[in-house]
Amino acid sequence: PAGEAGYRQYEQRFIDGVCNESLSSYLRDLTSQPHVAGTPENFATADYIRFAFQRYGIPTHYSDYEVLLSYPVNRSLVLSHPDGLFLELDLDEAVVDEDPYTKNPKVIPPFHGYSPSGNVTGEVVYANYGTLDDFDQLRKMGIKINGSIILARSGKIYRGDVVHYAAQRGAVAVITYSDPEEYANNRTEGYYPQSPWLPPSGVQRGTVFRGIGDPLTPGWPSTPGAQHLDLKDASLPTIPSLPISAQNARSILKGLAGPAAPRDWQGGLDLSVYRVGRGPAKLNLTFEAKQGVYPIRNVIGIIEGSEEPDRYVVVGNHRDAWVYGAVDPSSGTAALLEMAEGLSELKRQGWRPRRTIVLASWDAEEYGMVGSTEWVEENLGLLGASAVAYINVDCAAAGPGFRPKSSPQMDDLLREITRMVKDPDGKFATVYDSWRASSNGDTIGRLGGGGSDYEAFLHHAGVPAMDLSFGDAYPMYHSVYDDFHWMEKFGDPLFHRHVAITCIWGLVTMRLADDAVLPLDYVGYARELQGYVQTVQKQLQTAKAPSNVTLAPLHSAMGGAVNAAYQIDRESKVFMGTYGSETHDLFYFLLRRRAINDRLILSERALLDPEGVPGRSWYKHLVYSPTGSDSYDSINHFPSIADALAKATLTDTEDDWRAVQREIWRVSRAITRMQMILVGKLTQP
Amino acid sequence: PAGEAGYRQYEQRFIDGVCNESLSSYLRDLTSQPHVAGTPENFATADYIRFAFQRYGIPTHYSDYEVLLSYPVNRSLVLSHPDGLFLELDLDEAVVDEDPYTKNPKVIPPFHGYSPSGNVTGEVVYANYGTLDDFDQLRKMGIKINGSIILARSGKIYRGDVVHYAAQRGAVAVITYSDPEEYANNRTEGYYPQSPWLPPSGVQRGTVFRGIGDPLTPGWPSTPGAQHLDLKDASLPTIPSLPISAQNARSILKGLAGPAAPRDWQGGLDLSVYRVGRGPAKLNLTFEAKQGVYPIRNVIGIIEGSEEPDRYVVVGNHRDAWVYGAVDPSSGTAALLEMAEGLSELKRQGWRPRRTIVLASWDAEEYGMVGSTEWVEENLGLLGASAVAYINVDCAAAGPGFRPKSSPQMDDLLREITRMVKDPDGKFATVYDSWRASSNGDTIGRLGGGGSDYEAFLHHAGVPAMDLSFGDAYPMYHSVYDDFHWMEKFGDPLFHRHVAITCIWGLVTMRLADDAVLPLDYVGYARELQGYVQTVQKQLQTAKAPSNVTLAPLHSAMGGAVNAAYQIDRESKVFMGTYGSETHDLFYFLLRRRAINDRLILSERALLDPEGVPGRSWYKHLVYSPTGSDSYDSINHFPSIADALAKATLTDTEDDWRAVQREIWRVSRAITRMQMILVGKLTQP
Ligand SMILES: [Ca+2]
Ligand SMILES: [Ca+2]
Ligand SMILES: [Zn+2]
Ligand SMILES: [Zn+2]
Ligand SMILES: [Zn+2]
Ligand SMILES: [Zn+2]
Repeated sequence: PAGEAGYRQYEQRFIDGVCNESLSSYLRDLTSQPHVAGTPENFATADYIRFAFQRYGIPTHYSDYEVLLSYPVNRSLVLSHPDGLFLELDLDEAVVDEDPYTKNPKVIPPFHGYSPSGNVTGEVVYANYGTLDDFDQLRKMGIKINGSIILARSGKIYRGDVVHYAAQRGAVAVITYSDPEEYANNRTEGYYPQSPWLPPSGVQRGTVFRGIGDPLTPGWPSTPGAQHLDLKDASLPTIPSLPISAQNARSILKGLAGPAAPRDWQGGLDLSVYRVGRGPAKLNLTFEAKQGVYPIRNVIGIIEGSEEPDRYVVVGNHRDAWVYGAVDPSSGTAALLEMAEGLSELKRQGWRPRRTIVLASWDAEEYGMVGSTEWVEENLGLLGASAVAYINVDCAAAGPGFRPKSSPQMDDLLREITRMVKDPDGKFATVYDSWRASSNGDTIGRLGGGGSDYEAFLHHAGVPAMDLSFGDAYPMYHSVYDDFHWMEKFGDPLFHRHVAITCIWGLVTMRLADDAVLPLDYVGYARELQGYVQTVQKQLQTAKAPSNVTLAPLHSAMGGAVNAAYQIDRESKVFMGTYGSETHDLFYFLLRRRAINDRLILSERALLDPEGVPGRSWYKHLVYSPTGSDSYDSINHFPSIADALAKATLTDTEDDWRAVQREIWRVSRAITRMQMILVGKLTQP
Repeated sequence: PAGEAGYRQYEQRFIDGVCNESLSSYLRDLTSQPHVAGTPENFATADYIRFAFQRYGIPTHYSDYEVLLSYPVNRSLVLSHPDGLFLELDLDEAVVDEDPYTKNPKVIPPFHGYSPSGNVTGEVVYANYGTLDDFDQLRKMGIKINGSIILARSGKIYRGDVVHYAAQRGAVAVITYSDPEEYANNRTEGYYPQSPWLPPSGVQRGTVFRGIGDPLTPGWPSTPGAQHLDLKDASLPTIPSLPISAQNARSILKGLAGPAAPRDWQGGLDLSVYRVGRGPAKLNLTFEAKQGVYPIRNVIGIIEGSEEPDRYVVVGNHRDAWVYGAVDPSSGTAALLEMAEGLSELKRQGWRPRRTIVLASWDAEEYGMVGSTEWVEENLGLLGASAVAYINVDCAAAGPGFRPKSSPQMDDLLREITRMVKDPDGKFATVYDSWRASSNGDTIGRLGGGGSDYEAFLHHAGVPAMDLSFGDAYPMYHSVYDDFHWMEKFGDPLFHRHVAITCIWGLVTMRLADDAVLPLDYVGYARELQGYVQTVQKQLQTAKAPSNVTLAPLHSAMGGAVNAAYQIDRESKVFMGTYGSETHDLFYFLLRRRAINDRLILSERALLDPEGVPGRSWYKHLVYSPTGSDSYDSINHFPSIADALAKATLTDTEDDWRAVQREIWRVSRAITRMQMILVGKLTQP
């Protein structure tokens, strides 16, 4: 079989085969109808992908689950003032004449997935973004939350957390809206279709579930006939919520008196000042949901490895949308299809990956990464021992700027690959050059937070993960206007960003599938972990932790991990060359190279803890899992330490600080496990 | 490298090299002094083994931990009667003139490891063996436990459980003793040294800790400087306890009035009748322990594999004893040394195992499998992915009768190996013939219960395990009389049982290290699991479970597992032959064979659940872990189902039966994980 040279010849062929017209055609097909999880239209997209994969000669099957989903049946918001004025707010998004997609009666109305049904009335309180700091600010201002309806703007923290924090404080409902400051460039350029910005009627749909996967099967797969929790035992939101438009938020805010909101709470609405309330404006909110168990469908294509078919490189993208999802997720779905077509063409030309490539089209991501989580939970036994990496593309292209996130051991690989791919915006030669010249330089984000289908892979199964996209938060996110018309006009008019992402995705996948020794660099990972320890040290100083809270175990573990990373780096280099021709040498060479690769795969798993992050045991990864609150985002690594530190900073008891120390120990042991696997030796003196 | 034929030639050579005189010499050296964990004498035995291994050319190191241990400082028992008679009981074991070992002042006095210190007084209640049924019987007889001192005979359940059940019911202390019915053949043959039976002054030491490993580090290793729980947070016994002799028990029982004990509670003491009390005899019990953190030392020898050095066959025996431990554990230690010598001789003759053999001499087993558990907790990352099996020999020889226990996938291997080894008692040709002809036939015990160093491997890390011995429960267990003199006179006079066990241990180890495809049979395992499901079905019927408690998910999962087991059996056979001479074939053949072996290793891990058995989360194995009580021993497989069923049978609430169903689901999912790993494919339609 081919050595490195043999495999590398196919990379330029892959790049040369990626076609912007093909991508555009896929995207138009995929976004012809709204396709929400659990609907016939989304099952049609599953068929589309399966037929495409099969046409390419990729063996493909469906992976079906039965999961809890919810759909809006009835919604209303009535605003009332003390002077008796009643205003029933128009909750729909405006039709745009030049955009036929906006006229489709099948568009699902704006709502929050898994919001409970309810009919509540309350005085409104404006809570800025609804962060913990924002609620603390309101408390300091003497604003009573109990019995209120919270109005919060979107854009800083997860909407489910806002609902949770509000409910904890006694609010009866939450309204979220998209302020022009974030979503309309502060009203300086007009709105869609004249500009890319969100119209005043635009609404951001989304889930408010704070778990992951089917709420009825935490930790196990929702295979047909599986055990389901009773609804009362599922961790679902407890107060109703609705997303609304900026123009409706303006109406509500005009009805608020009370203190002026702090300076940095002032948004971009045409108002003299944002006030916090409470009231006197009242809202009556009615939300009726149809919630039940519905079938969903992943589509799984398998390109079997020639050498190590039992080692998997999984690439995935979700297929379900809130409406058309031209950016989110269908730009990624188009890229998946184009990549699949390209890889199958290479197969026809003689390429066979060493390791198996799994092409996954996930369902019900929008409700809480449901399709991918159920599949990971179903395949945990094999994935835990055999998955090399998971490469996710959710929103392939929303605008300019390469925005990668990754587990650190794939940073070098990503930088190398981006040097091979043409910059889609033409100002620079390569994606790398353009990325490097951006305001943040060639930084790579990390995946500790939630937000897409990498969560189950990394946070639960400990599989290194990557998430790739062009463009950042875009104005049409989860609104009806995220459609093919907007994409063609504003998001990626020539589909060159789609081409670039497909090239990067394909090449990263090929390297992980084909390199003799896996391109996973732990030296950089270990050094980055050392940086996280420095950050924790600063946080402890800032929090004035007691002197008996020490990072000594973490420093000690880190020293061992850095040495071990260098050691496996040296050992790996021996196996990167081509083996000799003697059978004897080949025999040992192959099995020992496999052993090196096993260590490279397993080292991430070392960071898992069977008990998980305290209070959220589904999250097993002690470095990259979400923290329990939006505090301490600056150490949104080591989430168990961050959670304990957040609590200790607040309540400052001896037990709290002991808990911080306990978490420091736990993370130290995880890093020592990583060290031992990197070294590949049972306990040594 | 050699094919099967090349490796098999060494097996007869190994057998021919095992020497009874060498074994006898090792045993005499090892048992020259009492060697309790944490004492200088036991560190000396560590040196002895390390020097021996190194003399054989086996690279060897110490693996040291700092763990909680306890030692007796002061003990007294004063028996008082209503008539004012006070009797201070003699708590020591009698000197035996012909046995010089019994004269050593260094013998540790009888005590219970981890018993708390205390000085308590109470009326005595005789509780038979102290099982849950026994305590229930006492309740039915109207005997008040609260404030009493429980007297229980040893031999049926774990002494720590007796202490726990007594404490739960308000007892202030527990006394355990060795009744002549179990330990002196009901007084029909006299006592040691005239016969092998326990003298009336003989006492059974032992731990009363109900956890495993260092009580201060549940789930993580007690490496020097490690986090330790505060003592108050450790799960230690709460009432003091002492082991005593039969003659002292007789004195106490003579002081008991109240109802006659049930017929089957009558033991073998020279008494007209055993009565339960309560009282009127009272005991004052004083126990003072020195409890603290002490160093312990495992000795680890490594014979590195030539082909797959990163796959481990671990063989182990504990080295610490309560006194001399001629049976327990030094007969096993002698066998370990003899096996190490034999394997090293084969190495000199050209043998190199394919996979690494780890030779482990554990410390502090007697306190709670401490040394092995700490090592497994320290090496969990590598063992979880890479350990083939753990083969334990604790008591190699105590008398006649081969008594193996094993994970089911090694049953066939064990039967094959025992057909190759000469029967030590000469009546039959082979160990297999003798075993087959025994009263139980060639049954193999299972390892769901606790009791030796396989626990952490199987119950926590999911490594298939085996435990080998000749002879069953022997009279001198944990007493001073378990010495070289007894062994030479009664246990194994010609050391042929030692030879047989060494041969079996060595050959099993060599097969697991050398066979091209691992000799792990899952067809038999799957069929046995089906049998366990039948047993659960009968238990549900007996308990009159509600009709909505169903085993359907378990039956469904089992069907898939049986099919998958046959599938991997067929696939394995393809790789048992020798590969062709073409490089191309060899290339694929080797890696695919490794993949098969990976699946064979990982399938046991499928039965682990990260949450563990409810209430005892350290126990991760859902088929083979201890149950939470001594009830339902007949389904002492599926411990989480057994625990839930025991509770539901007792309290019979809707929630209890829902918990039973929940555990049925969990076990079903574990078996489905096993099925998926056996098949080696991600989710298929
Ligand atoms: Ca689930
Ligand atoms: Ca421990
Ligand atoms: Zn998305
Ligand atoms: Zn989305
Ligand atoms: Zn033992
Ligand atoms: Zn013992």
